[in-house]
Amino acid sequence: MKQRVTLITLGVDDLKKSLKFYRALGWKTQGIVGEEFENGAVVFFDLQKGLTLDLYERKNLAKDAEVELCPKSSSEFSLAYNVSSKKEVDILMQEAETAGAKITKKSQRAFWGGYHGYFADPDGHLWEIAYNPEMKTGE
Amino acid sequence: MKQRVTLITLGVDDLKKSLKFYRALGWKTQGIVGEEFENGAVVFFDLQKGLTLDLYERKNLAKDAEVELCPKSSSEFSLAYNVSSKKEVDILMQEAETAGAKITKKSQRAFWGGYHGYFADPDGHLWEIAYNPEMKTGE
Repeated sequence: MKQRVTLITLGVDDLKKSLKFYRALGWKTQGIVGEEFENGAVVFFDLQKGLTLDLYERKNLAKDAEVELCPKSSSEFSLAYNVSSKKEVDILMQEAETAGAKITKKSQRAFWGGYHGYFADPDGHLWEIAYNPEMKTGE
Repeated sequence: MKQRVTLITLGVDDLKKSLKFYRALGWKTQGIVGEEFENGAVVFFDLQKGLTLDLYERKNLAKDAEVELCPKSSSEFSLAYNVSSKKEVDILMQEAETAGAKITKKSQRAFWGGYHGYFADPDGHLWEIAYNPEMKTGE
């Protein structure tokens, strides 16, 4: 198995609510597709080349993967979005809050030497907005 | 906020156990780093260009993001790894099982027209191995 990921699926409670949030962040998508299939409704977002993120109802994910539907948990994973300055962290955290995110950690110095903040999407999924002076963001 | 992800952090219970599993899958890493920081121990895997995956203890993730440490849940998210044939799905599912994964769904026809299976890593994090005849895997 090579070191790569094709698709990141976020389990959500309410597809429309979650779609509205990511659109408010400025993300583009054709909206809900797959409704022709039972338990198939899904929202896709194209990320960088070779990577897609989708929103899919938790109950459908549990059914599809044949696992138990569990209570929500914010400590399972996080997604980080690196930027090239502290100021950009502050701006994006503000934009996320405006879009309806819950700020779990205000932007501040990180123990590893950078600067970061965390917000949670409507399902409690964590996004870290980070500036790492030792990392190029490729932008 | 652009449509991209820099880092996927998987919350784990036992860093060494999880590291052993991903190494058994064939993944390369320099191992545990960041131990010079309190709550900093982490394992990084370089994925495709611009994307990294890391393993980080759940309790440290919760502390870092200032969220509650919740019970484990497999229905929060999944990561998909697309391949270019049904046979490759079968091979990778077998390799994952050999590496110690729990097979939650044996490889089979998927409702959306492809072929897939799911396994869970030692922390219950879901990986979907999928063949989608309508998608190029870039390999």
